Amino acid sequence: MSKGELTRQTIVDAATRVASRVGLGGLTIGSLAADTGLSKSGLFAHFNSKESLQLQVLDHASARFVDLVVRPALKAPRGEPRVRELFDHWFAWCRDELSAGCLFVAAATELDDQPGPVRDQLAKVQRDWLETIATVFATGISEGQFRADADPEQFAQDLYGVMLAYHHASRLLDDPRAEQRARRALDRLLEAARVPS
Amino acid sequence: MSKGELTRQTIVDAATRVASRVGLGGLTIGSLAADTGLSKSGLFAHFNSKESLQLQVLDHASARFVDLVVRPALKAPRGEPRVRELFDHWFAWCRDELSAGCLFVAAATELDDQPGPVRDQLAKVQRDWLETIATVFATGISEGQFRADADPEQFAQDLYGVMLAYHHASRLLDDPRAEQRARRALDRLLEAARVPS
Repeated sequence: MSKGELTRQTIVDAATRVASRVGLGGLTIGSLAADTGLSKSGLFAHFNSKESLQLQVLDHASARFVDLVVRPALKAPRGEPRVRELFDHWFAWCRDELSAGCLFVAAATELDDQPGPVRDQLAKVQRDWLETIATVFATGISEGQFRADADPEQFAQDLYGVMLAYHHASRLLDDPRAEQRARRALDRLLEAARVPS
Repeated sequence: MSKGELTRQTIVDAATRVASRVGLGGLTIGSLAADTGLSKSGLFAHFNSKESLQLQVLDHASARFVDLVVRPALKAPRGEPRVRELFDHWFAWCRDELSAGCLFVAAATELDDQPGPVRDQLAKVQRDWLETIATVFATGISEGQFRADADPEQFAQDLYGVMLAYHHASRLLDDPRAEQRARRALDRLLEAARVPS
C-alpha cells in the first residue's frame, strides 16, 4: 500500500467515526477538517467533494460490516445457528461505536428523501443486507430445519424490524429490557419457521 | 384565538412540514425564514431560539399524531379491531407527507445521540406511543381475545419493529411488497397472541 493510500485510509476511518456521530449527510470536508485537525485543502486533494467523501465512508463502513457481521456468521453451521450468529454479530456491531455503530440505521432515515448517488449507494448496501438475511435464512429451508413454504424475504424484513425496534428502544428510550425483547422476538420468528417435530 | 396565536400556529405548521423534510435537528430559524419567506427577526419574536422552535414543532406533531392516529383507533371495539385500526392509521399518517409523515422515525435516529431538551421531549413522546400500543393490546387480554400471559410491552416493541421495517423497505428501498409483508407480520403477531379456540 502506498503512503498516499495509507493516509487516505486513515482519513476515511476517522471520517466514518465522525459520520457515525453527526450522520452521513452531516459529514462535510469542513466538519472533517475541524474534527481531525487536517487542512481543508489537504482533504480536498483526497476527496474532491463532499459527495465523494460520503461515498467513500459508505464503502468503508460496508466493508467493515461484511468483515465484522456477515463473514463470521457464514462460518457457523447452516440454518438456525447461522441466523443466530448473524443476529449476535449485528448486536455487537451496533454497540461498538468505533466501528461506526449504527451508521446505516441513522443514514437510512436521514437520506431516504434526498435523491442522489449517496442515497442510491446506501439503498444498494441495504438491499444487499436484507438479501444476506434472506439467504442465510434460506439455508435453513434447504437443510430441512425450516418449513419449505417459509418466505425468506418476509423473514428478512421481520428480522430487520426486530433490530430496528431494538435500536430505537435502547438508544432513544434507554430501555434496559430492549435486548431481552429483541431476543424473544427472534426466538418466536424462528419457532414459527421451524418444521414441526 | 388571538391574532398573534393564530400567526404562531400557522408558522409552527409550516415549520413542521420543513422538519419532516430536513429533519428536526436540521430545522433552524434561518432555514425556516428561507423556506417561508418570513423575516428572521419576526420568527425570533415568536420562538427566541432554535431549540424552542424544535420543541414547539415536536408538540405540534405529537398533537396531530394523537388526533389522526390514536384518537380514531380508540373508537374501534376493544382488542384486535382496535390494534388493527391503530396500525392502519399509523400507515395513513406515515404516507401523508403534509401531516409531517414519519417525522418521529427520522428524528429518533437523528437525535438519539444528541443530549438535550429536544431529545428528552422526543423520548417522552415515543415512550407515550409505545405505551399506547401496549395499552391498546392489553384491552384484548381483558376482553379474553388474547392470552392472559401475553406481554403487552413485548407486543409494543414487536409491532413498532414491523412499522420501522416497513418504513425502511418502502421509503429507502422502494420495495413494492413492503406493506404486504408488514400486514402479514401483524397477522402473525396477532395469531400468536390469540387464545386458541
